[in-house]
Amino acid sequence: MIITDYQFSDRVSGLQPSLIREFFKYNGLPGYMPFSAGNPSAETFPVKAIEEIAADIFKNHPVTALQYGITEGYTPLRETLKKFSRDRYGIGAENDELIITSGSQQIMYLSTKVLVNEGDTVLVENPSFVGSLNAFRSFGAKLVGVPMESDGVDVAALEQAMKTEKNIRFFYTIPNFQNPSGATMSWEKRKAVYALAKQYGVLIIEDNPYGELRVAGEDIPPIKSLDEDGLVIYAGSFSKVLAPGIRIGYCVAPKPIVAKITVGKQVSDVHTPVFSQMLVDEWMKRYSIEEHIASLRSVYRHKLDLMCDLVEEKLSRFVTYTRPEGGLFVWCRLNDHIPMQEFCTKAVANKVTIVPGSAFLPNDTDTTQCFRMNFSTPTDDQIRQGMDILADLAAQY
Amino acid sequence: MIITDYQFSDRVSGLQPSLIREFFKYNGLPGYMPFSAGNPSAETFPVKAIEEIAADIFKNHPVTALQYGITEGYTPLRETLKKFSRDRYGIGAENDELIITSGSQQIMYLSTKVLVNEGDTVLVENPSFVGSLNAFRSFGAKLVGVPMESDGVDVAALEQAMKTEKNIRFFYTIPNFQNPSGATMSWEKRKAVYALAKQYGVLIIEDNPYGELRVAGEDIPPIKSLDEDGLVIYAGSFSKVLAPGIRIGYCVAPKPIVAKITVGKQVSDVHTPVFSQMLVDEWMKRYSIEEHIASLRSVYRHKLDLMCDLVEEKLSRFVTYTRPEGGLFVWCRLNDHIPMQEFCTKAVANKVTIVPGSAFLPNDTDTTQCFRMNFSTPTDDQIRQGMDILADLAAQY
Repeated sequence: MIITDYQFSDRVSGLQPSLIREFFKYNGLPGYMPFSAGNPSAETFPVKAIEEIAADIFKNHPVTALQYGITEGYTPLRETLKKFSRDRYGIGAENDELIITSGSQQIMYLSTKVLVNEGDTVLVENPSFVGSLNAFRSFGAKLVGVPMESDGVDVAALEQAMKTEKNIRFFYTIPNFQNPSGATMSWEKRKAVYALAKQYGVLIIEDNPYGELRVAGEDIPPIKSLDEDGLVIYAGSFSKVLAPGIRIGYCVAPKPIVAKITVGKQVSDVHTPVFSQMLVDEWMKRYSIEEHIASLRSVYRHKLDLMCDLVEEKLSRFVTYTRPEGGLFVWCRLNDHIPMQEFCTKAVANKVTIVPGSAFLPNDTDTTQCFRMNFSTPTDDQIRQGMDILADLAAQY
Repeated sequence: MIITDYQFSDRVSGLQPSLIREFFKYNGLPGYMPFSAGNPSAETFPVKAIEEIAADIFKNHPVTALQYGITEGYTPLRETLKKFSRDRYGIGAENDELIITSGSQQIMYLSTKVLVNEGDTVLVENPSFVGSLNAFRSFGAKLVGVPMESDGVDVAALEQAMKTEKNIRFFYTIPNFQNPSGATMSWEKRKAVYALAKQYGVLIIEDNPYGELRVAGEDIPPIKSLDEDGLVIYAGSFSKVLAPGIRIGYCVAPKPIVAKITVGKQVSDVHTPVFSQMLVDEWMKRYSIEEHIASLRSVYRHKLDLMCDLVEEKLSRFVTYTRPEGGLFVWCRLNDHIPMQEFCTKAVANKVTIVPGSAFLPNDTDTTQCFRMNFSTPTDDQIRQGMDILADLAAQY
C-alpha cells in the first residue's frame, strides 16, 4: 500500500515553493516576456575566457579539480577574495574570516541555521528577497518586517523594532539596489543602522549580490566596512558579476561565526565544487575584474534606462516608482484604483510575467499595491512589447 | 570593542567539526601515510574524457552551463539517472521522483531537515559514517545506535529499537561496504529490514556511495528495489564512481518527500552547479559506465587485497576483522590488551593516520576497540610501510 501522507518537520511543513518559481515556467515559453526572473544578462558572461580557463584547469590540474576539497573553500581563491574584498570594499578585519559558499543563498541559510532557534526573531526589510525570507522561515524564525524608504530601511522603525521585539538574532539587509524595491541605503543610514546594531547588540547580515551593478550615482561602502565590533556578516556573490550557474558566494564574518558556518556547511554539502572555485580564482588572476564590471555596467545601464524610460513614458498615469540606481529590478506601486493581484494575473495571461509584490512580504497577511519587473533577462524588444501590454492593461481600469 | 562570545542556536552549539577533519591536515604532509581519508583513488578519474567534455560544454552550451538552473536538477541528467537507476538497480517506482543534489551528503542533510523535529529519534547503524551522524545531530535528532554484524545490522536489535523508541523518523543504513565497518547487508537482511520498516511505519534512508566498489562476491539489489510502499529514500553518489570534487549526488524517493527536499534545497543552495550536472550527463551518454565501473573495481581490488593481505600477515596477532567485499575502508578491532585511543595517537605520531573508531559512534559515551583504515588514498608503498609501522606499534603492548 503506497503511503501518500508523510509527516514533515514543523519547521518546513508550512514552507511553500517560492511563488517566483511558479512564474519561472513561463519564462522559457515562446511569446512570453520574461519579466519575472532574477537572471543576470547572459551576454555579460565572459564565455571565451571561461572556455580557455576551463581547458587549462582540466589539462594542468585535473586531480585538484576533481578530488575532494576542504569545507572552507579552495585556499588560493580564499586568499584572492580576502585581498579583493579588502581592497575594493574595505572589509575583512583581523577578527574576520572568509569562507566560500555554494552561492550566497547558502550564507543566509547557514547563518540562520547556526544563529536562530525556532521562534527567535529575524528583522527584515519589508519587502525583501523571498529566497532569504524562506531560508529564515525554514528554521522557524519569526520574521518582523521594517518598512523600506527610497533611501533604504526606515531607521526609526528599525530602532523601534530593536527596542520592542524579543530574541532578535539579526537584521537582514540588502543595502544596494534592494530586491525587490530597488532602493539603495544611503551612507548616513548605513552608519545609523550600524550604530543601532551596536547599541542593541543585534547582528547584521549584509547581502550584497547586486552591488556591482550600479548604473548611476556613486558607489557607497558596505556596512561591513564600519564593523569594528564583529557585528556584521557580509555575503558576496559571483552570480551577477561572473555567472550564477557556477554557484560561488563568499562570506566575510567574525571568526567564531565563520567557524560555526563551516561546521554547518560540512554536514550540508561538504564543500563547494572545486572546479567552480578554481575557475573564479583563475579568472580573477588573468583578467581585470574592474574592467569586466565596467562593461557589465554599460549593459545594465542600457537595459535599466530602457525599462525606466518606458515606465515614465507609458505607465506614469498608473504607477508611482523610484528609479533605481542599479541592480536587476524595477518596483512599481499601482495607483489604488487598480487591484494588484488581478493586474498581475492579467499580465501573465497576456504573457508578461511580472511578479506580484505579495511574494516579497515577510508577513503573509500584509497586502501591497506593488509589483516587480526584471530588465536583465528580456530582450530590448521584449521590454518594449511588455511595457505596451502593461500600459494597455492598466488603461482598462 | 570586539565581540568574542556569540550566542549560537541550540541545534549547533554542541556540534563539533568532524574528528576526521583533524586527521586530514596530516594527509598532505610529506612522510605521512594517508590512511584517514575517504578519498577515491585519483588514478580512477577519467581525466581525458572530462577534459574533452568540458571543452565541448563551454564551446557549445556555455550559457546553459553558466546561467541559473532549476532546483530539481538539470533535466537531461535527471532523465539519464532515472533510466540508469531503474535499469541497474531496479529502483524508481511510479510514485517516486529523482532530484540531483550537491553530493549525496545533502540528501541525508535535507531529509533530516524536512522529516525530523528537534528531539525526534533517528535509528542508525553503530558504528556509522560521522558525516551523516553530524547532519542528523545538526537538527537536534536523538541518535539511537543499532549494533552492526558482519552481514549488516542486527535485525533483532533493530526491531527492538523500533518497538521501544519514541518518535522514530527514519532508520539510516549504508548496506554496501558500510563506512566504517566495511560490512555488507545480506539480501535476507535487506528484506527483513524492509519488512520491519513496513510493520512499524518507519522510513529508511539507504545511503549507497560505495555500492559500485565491489571487488568480491555478487552485487546485491538495494533495499529501495523492494519499496512498494513508499518507505525508502535512496541516496546515490558520483563521488566514488566518477569524481567527488564535482559534488553530484541523486536522490530517488517518494514524490511528496522529494517535493519537500526540493523546497529545502531551494532555500539552501538554490541548485547544484549546472556544469557539474552537464558533465555527468554527457559522460554517461558518451561512455559506458559499466566498463568504467569494471576498471574501477580492478584498481580497488588490488588496493583492498594488498591492505587486507597485510592485515592478515602482520596484524592478525593483534586485531580481529572481517575482510570487506568492497568499499574504501578496513575496520579492525584491537585485542583487549591494546588501548585503542593510545594506539591511534601513537600511530599518527608515527605518521600513519588511522582513525579511532570512537569517531563513528552515535553515542559519545560509548567506547570501542576499533579503528578505521582507508586503502584508496595511500600508494602501495605507503600501505606496506604503514602496515609495518602499525605491526611494530602493536607488538609493543
